[in-house]
Amino acid sequence: MNGDNDGKKLRAAIVGGSGYTGGELLRIALEHPLIKLEAVTSRGQKRRSVTKAHPNLRGATDLRFVEPGELVQRGEEKKFDLIFLATPHGKSMELVEEFIPLTEVLVDLSGDFRLRGAEEYEQWYGKRHTRPDLLDKFVYGMPELYRSQLREARLIASPGCTATSAIIPLKPLAESFGKDIVDVVVDAKVGSSAGGASPNAGSHHPERRDVVRSYAPCGHRHTAEMEQELGISVSFSPHAVEMVRGILATIHLSLDREYEEKEIWSIYRDSYGEEPFVRFVKERKGLYRYPEPKLLRGTNFFEIGFEKDQRTGRLVIMAALDNLVKGAAGQAVQAANLAFGLEEKTGLGRVGLHPA
Amino acid sequence: MNGDNDGKKLRAAIVGGSGYTGGELLRIALEHPLIKLEAVTSRGQKRRSVTKAHPNLRGATDLRFVEPGELVQRGEEKKFDLIFLATPHGKSMELVEEFIPLTEVLVDLSGDFRLRGAEEYEQWYGKRHTRPDLLDKFVYGMPELYRSQLREARLIASPGCTATSAIIPLKPLAESFGKDIVDVVVDAKVGSSAGGASPNAGSHHPERRDVVRSYAPCGHRHTAEMEQELGISVSFSPHAVEMVRGILATIHLSLDREYEEKEIWSIYRDSYGEEPFVRFVKERKGLYRYPEPKLLRGTNFFEIGFEKDQRTGRLVIMAALDNLVKGAAGQAVQAANLAFGLEEKTGLGRVGLHPA
Amino acid sequence: MNGDNDGKKLRAAIVGGSGYTGGELLRIALEHPLIKLEAVTSRGQKRRSVTKAHPNLRGATDLRFVEPGELVQRGEEKKFDLIFLATPHGKSMELVEEFIPLTEVLVDLSGDFRLRGAEEYEQWYGKRHTRPDLLDKFVYGMPELYRSQLREARLIASPGCTATSAIIPLKPLAESFGKDIVDVVVDAKVGSSAGGASPNAGSHHPERRDVVRSYAPCGHRHTAEMEQELGISVSFSPHAVEMVRGILATIHLSLDREYEEKEIWSIYRDSYGEEPFVRFVKERKGLYRYPEPKLLRGTNFFEIGFEKDQRTGRLVIMAALDNLVKGAAGQAVQAANLAFGLEEKTGLGRVGLHPA
Amino acid sequence: MNGDNDGKKLRAAIVGGSGYTGGELLRIALEHPLIKLEAVTSRGQKRRSVTKAHPNLRGATDLRFVEPGELVQRGEEKKFDLIFLATPHGKSMELVEEFIPLTEVLVDLSGDFRLRGAEEYEQWYGKRHTRPDLLDKFVYGMPELYRSQLREARLIASPGCTATSAIIPLKPLAESFGKDIVDVVVDAKVGSSAGGASPNAGSHHPERRDVVRSYAPCGHRHTAEMEQELGISVSFSPHAVEMVRGILATIHLSLDREYEEKEIWSIYRDSYGEEPFVRFVKERKGLYRYPEPKLLRGTNFFEIGFEKDQRTGRLVIMAALDNLVKGAAGQAVQAANLAFGLEEKTGLGRVGLHPA
Repeated sequence: MNGDNDGKKLRAAIVGGSGYTGGELLRIALEHPLIKLEAVTSRGQKRRSVTKAHPNLRGATDLRFVEPGELVQRGEEKKFDLIFLATPHGKSMELVEEFIPLTEVLVDLSGDFRLRGAEEYEQWYGKRHTRPDLLDKFVYGMPELYRSQLREARLIASPGCTATSAIIPLKPLAESFGKDIVDVVVDAKVGSSAGGASPNAGSHHPERRDVVRSYAPCGHRHTAEMEQELGISVSFSPHAVEMVRGILATIHLSLDREYEEKEIWSIYRDSYGEEPFVRFVKERKGLYRYPEPKLLRGTNFFEIGFEKDQRTGRLVIMAALDNLVKGAAGQAVQAANLAFGLEEKTGLGRVGLHPA
Repeated sequence: MNGDNDGKKLRAAIVGGSGYTGGELLRIALEHPLIKLEAVTSRGQKRRSVTKAHPNLRGATDLRFVEPGELVQRGEEKKFDLIFLATPHGKSMELVEEFIPLTEVLVDLSGDFRLRGAEEYEQWYGKRHTRPDLLDKFVYGMPELYRSQLREARLIASPGCTATSAIIPLKPLAESFGKDIVDVVVDAKVGSSAGGASPNAGSHHPERRDVVRSYAPCGHRHTAEMEQELGISVSFSPHAVEMVRGILATIHLSLDREYEEKEIWSIYRDSYGEEPFVRFVKERKGLYRYPEPKLLRGTNFFEIGFEKDQRTGRLVIMAALDNLVKGAAGQAVQAANLAFGLEEKTGLGRVGLHPA
Repeated sequence: MNGDNDGKKLRAAIVGGSGYTGGELLRIALEHPLIKLEAVTSRGQKRRSVTKAHPNLRGATDLRFVEPGELVQRGEEKKFDLIFLATPHGKSMELVEEFIPLTEVLVDLSGDFRLRGAEEYEQWYGKRHTRPDLLDKFVYGMPELYRSQLREARLIASPGCTATSAIIPLKPLAESFGKDIVDVVVDAKVGSSAGGASPNAGSHHPERRDVVRSYAPCGHRHTAEMEQELGISVSFSPHAVEMVRGILATIHLSLDREYEEKEIWSIYRDSYGEEPFVRFVKERKGLYRYPEPKLLRGTNFFEIGFEKDQRTGRLVIMAALDNLVKGAAGQAVQAANLAFGLEEKTGLGRVGLHPA
Repeated sequence: MNGDNDGKKLRAAIVGGSGYTGGELLRIALEHPLIKLEAVTSRGQKRRSVTKAHPNLRGATDLRFVEPGELVQRGEEKKFDLIFLATPHGKSMELVEEFIPLTEVLVDLSGDFRLRGAEEYEQWYGKRHTRPDLLDKFVYGMPELYRSQLREARLIASPGCTATSAIIPLKPLAESFGKDIVDVVVDAKVGSSAGGASPNAGSHHPERRDVVRSYAPCGHRHTAEMEQELGISVSFSPHAVEMVRGILATIHLSLDREYEEKEIWSIYRDSYGEEPFVRFVKERKGLYRYPEPKLLRGTNFFEIGFEKDQRTGRLVIMAALDNLVKGAAGQAVQAANLAFGLEEKTGLGRVGLHPA
């Protein structure tokens, strides 16, 4: 899909490219006019075509998986511009030592460098952080919050998918209302791809299909990211529902003071009016009056809608995204675009399908 | 499916039998050993076999739909024991005048007689109630709350499906904790059958499939039933999700005092330990640790699970049911069983399927 | 769910009760008024409640899995009336030696004793049969074909689910038209539960969902059963489609002579007019003009519809069933009912749900 | 999504742009670098933003629907380069009189001009053709069969979606084997979007979900296109299955002579080796060994796989596509690209998603 002027392109690599996030990084990199993907690693699938793991890319690439060692060797010969770590939680902090020297910019998509404190990491992930020295060197890769920092970033920690679903809509409110925001409940409905590419008892189709499974009514580790970025207390309850891609987060909150809907509108417009990927969906009529994840599959868009309960004053916010794109690979590429001074939307222009 | 001793059976009829609730009443009545279904009305489908509307019943019955007038005539000849009104909201209050004299017990499954006040009805349903004189004559048909009243009832208002999903799990807590319960959010995930049997733009398969549609973030009329029965303020936000039958209600709340999980357990055991259809699902391991609607399809069971967030104190309750059974036809038959002094589970013993 | 007069009941056991077929046997046995289930084995789950594997049965039973050895011991103490082997292909032929002496009637649900020739077994299953001596002692457990033999049977080989979908509708035609039937194509659409309870790469929800996967365009082993029972050549192509339970087989065939639709009707009526579980579905109007598996979930019904292409003379037959019931556990219980002289429908009266 | 040099772009319009085919034409036109979409008509939705009907395009366009009269007026002022008729069957033949003079190239996506004979039209569509004079002026818009004619075409009749699923894979075989091909059965599995954007009883979610509905076991009108283009007899049986987009056609056929798989390979390579959108999928291992529609959503690709049954000699072909893209809007744009001498893939480069 790339054109010819490869000389001007970013030389990129993906570590851990056989999973779902790796696959989306691959697809987006191939669609990106200024990225030249040089290597994709997979321990288990070396030498096999990447299309064996990602059959949607048949015909679009002839890349083959290589072992991590080969990527290291190439990086030592000539430094990469951009390396994505699409490795599991706990693995990235082992690998950074080796990969940081090989690249101008490193984007880690695991949870390893998202929290700023090693104690928080230990509390939520249940194990010791082995590279606490690096925690403050990573920029949290959410352009809506850290655009200017990302322009200077060399190390980027790409946010979690459900964390993204809560932080983007809540941040402007948290900034405006501060401690007046109370009783924040984030009730998320999540597609099965968020569980990754490895089969398990819970992902077995006859068991997973049609569930509305409350898989972590409290204590989910993405809560840590939310509270860190928002500075307010959040109760987060995700549910596995019947879809493959997508998250809808319904956010319920109260304000300890009077407010009008137009005030919310105004805050959002001020914060996100110019955002390339944030859209507001709040209509009086029609089928899609609020955000709907199925319309966002494959896209980097993030949709926000809301409604004030005139009777109780409670605010209900709906937020939708594709967990593998704006919730993972797309957001990572968006951050990388910033880090290299590219137009932020480059390679991320895909619109959704309807019906879908 | 019925046996031979029809002489001892309740002579029953269904008004408005071509919809989904009517179909479930039919199925359950046919499975009920002590009900003899004598007539099912449908204005649009008279003389057609009921199996045209309910093809699952092929071979199980040779009943045909009749016009309401025919049912009236039969009731005038010989009074029915039991009439179910499975008519739309607004229609039942027109019809009761005619049907009450024809039967010992009348169960209305619409919303017309659930609220005790005509003002509340007007506020939530947006129109005037034409039979306010009858409102206090109906018993709210939820056996878990009104068992003794139902044993004496002649007029029963069967609860709404999403209202049921919230009231059953919240009632014991509301009684125990009273005004200490605050910030109650009921975030419900609802199958498409809850929308009824008539096609519309929102139920068109390419549009309805895979949605996580927040169709009433606030102001849903079932809120009125919840608040009436619970005596506390409730914020209710239902979502249409990808399934046909079932509701999972996730209920988030805070308590204005300290509490332990075992206290919740104790309250629930005291309230519902003997309930024939209420089950608790709260396991440490396995795929089905909490209530799961897909396991309850076709059954009258109601499942409750919960978890206390040790960090924030918030209580998260999960409640599951089949909207057409425990949320409608099954609950109506359970109430009727009580009204006739039958064993409460009669005709309602079906267990769910797995996998499903 | 059973009543009290256990003394008159069949003492039954299930070997291999943790899978999907085992679970359905359990459910049906619990619903069966004349079966008393005494033991269910599972090597992996001994001492655990059967409801851990089959959460739909919560509240319906307090049985726990036992090890096979315990079942043997009980059978030696007092012979069982009925043992079901719900063990994998290849395993049953190892186990029969031990279990046959322990029971009056043994029903094997694997493929091990369905084929009458050891060579056919070897050809289609790719390994040697270790008990060829027993092959002609088993009766093929399809009541529609072998009712009288099943009444005398001690050893029953219960048919395969997709084999059932083709044999029942084709048998009467094969008998009537013989070699005039040509070009038989069985194009089956199959739910995910047919793949069993063990997760694998192909059953991972994000991969399995929404597929129309031709998983064996030719050479599927159930072809052997079809050809054995029908005596004609069959081309069988199953597809995995998006559902959990159910099979629709579309059978395309030609006749080497003129025929009328009414002739087909007449053959079917003569053959199956009295069958308790075979239904014909062929309507001019409505949504469910032909067999539809979703209406049969949980039931033992088998539906047949057909249409003659007036232009080409080709006959198209549609056949539907629940793969786990009429395609497995239900058919096995139906055969067992016959073997014990019970009314054939005993315990199998469940009707389907609509909508579903 | 378009760039700036609109001067060089094709001035295009869509008649009947509020349906699903119209929506995909819109999406593709917006993604097409050489099309400038000037007008989209909808009688029912004039002046409303096209994003009301196609919410996936929010943010991608500010086009509003206009009435057909306005499009005519603009075309009279300055002739369009390209008009797509996405109007219903029977409507297009009314409209062509008016629209042909307004445009260089007209592509009709209805069934009105696909059949070459007015008698065939009458036979299959059940009504008289009102413009038989135009039938031989339309080129059948399937580039794989009519590439050279399309390069000269002014009037293009875009093929039906299920017709496409059968014609592309069968044409090379029909040409090579001629009358030796016998007993051709096309058993298609079709998503709900193929039924169009208007709700009806059969598309109501609780009824449509999970069906395997044989909606036209014989006599489907797309058969006429297949037989016209292939010159052989075809038995076509489509089934509605649980998906929104996509068709898998399983084609079963026999050859009246010996053949080897490699012969089939060779025929396909010779015919389609250079086709930009036809891909072969036939692998020994992995989950996606054969064509799979879910990987093709939103793309213009057409996948073919096959298997020879070594036992019976029968050939089974699997063919997959997105019914709204390669089966409708994408194929129409591909044909238009040819008519204007553009690179055939222009605007059609989208790859699919995985997981999906």
